[in-house]
Amino acid sequence: MPAPKTPLLAVDCVVFDNESRVLMIRRKNAPFKGAYALPGGFVDIGETVEAAARRELREETAVRPGKLTLIGVYSDPRRDPRGHTCSVAFLAKVKRATATAGDDAASVAWVANPRRAKLAFDHHKIVADALRLLKQRG
Amino acid sequence: MPAPKTPLLAVDCVVFDNESRVLMIRRKNAPFKGAYALPGGFVDIGETVEAAARRELREETAVRPGKLTLIGVYSDPRRDPRGHTCSVAFLAKVKRATATAGDDAASVAWVANPRRAKLAFDHHKIVADALRLLKQRG
Repeated sequence: MPAPKTPLLAVDCVVFDNESRVLMIRRKNAPFKGAYALPGGFVDIGETVEAAARRELREETAVRPGKLTLIGVYSDPRRDPRGHTCSVAFLAKVKRATATAGDDAASVAWVANPRRAKLAFDHHKIVADALRLLKQRG
Repeated sequence: MPAPKTPLLAVDCVVFDNESRVLMIRRKNAPFKGAYALPGGFVDIGETVEAAARRELREETAVRPGKLTLIGVYSDPRRDPRGHTCSVAFLAKVKRATATAGDDAASVAWVANPRRAKLAFDHHKIVADALRLLKQRG
């Protein structure tokens, strides 16, 4: 049997600091060049989604989170204009808001009002779901 | 940029009837031929994970569930001996336990004690997580 073709698999991270600001990158590349986006990227073969989330956070922002909590799975075929990519999103909290831009990120920022910012992809929806989860779990 | 290579994407469904029995199929093919497994399969490009879960349930068991609740994402590279496949697992409840075998399923059963059954892949872990979620949510 030939290997099935399935959507690409990615991760995104919603990291809150102790003032409920969200860690964002400014996208250096298309699509959504210049917009804010959640740190994240493709999952490597041989890597768990949790390991991919930690790796992407480290590479893009130098942030090393503690516990990761699953927010949801975002698989609308239209969410990425480059092709069908399914994203597994995680929530994390950090005490001190330090971060350094790397990799695909032009710059890193802690955004106080992510609902008002121009965000790439379906990241508004992911952030809204993360805020709801944060409220439930505290 | 060439398309990235990522793990294959699949779905699995834990469907409970009103006596907390779990809908299982007997696998007709390797790996784990003859073992019980959760209904599920690969996600098609252009299809959401929720749509894939409903399609696989329909094709394999003729069950049409109502609401789907996310249980978790299972991405250990060793969970499928054929290669790295990440599975998104959903919980559903049905009132009447009717089902008909189709497709990859040799037969369909409502299993009263899934913890004691021989299950394929990491389906013991998925069922344990589903039972925990069912207890929390009622």
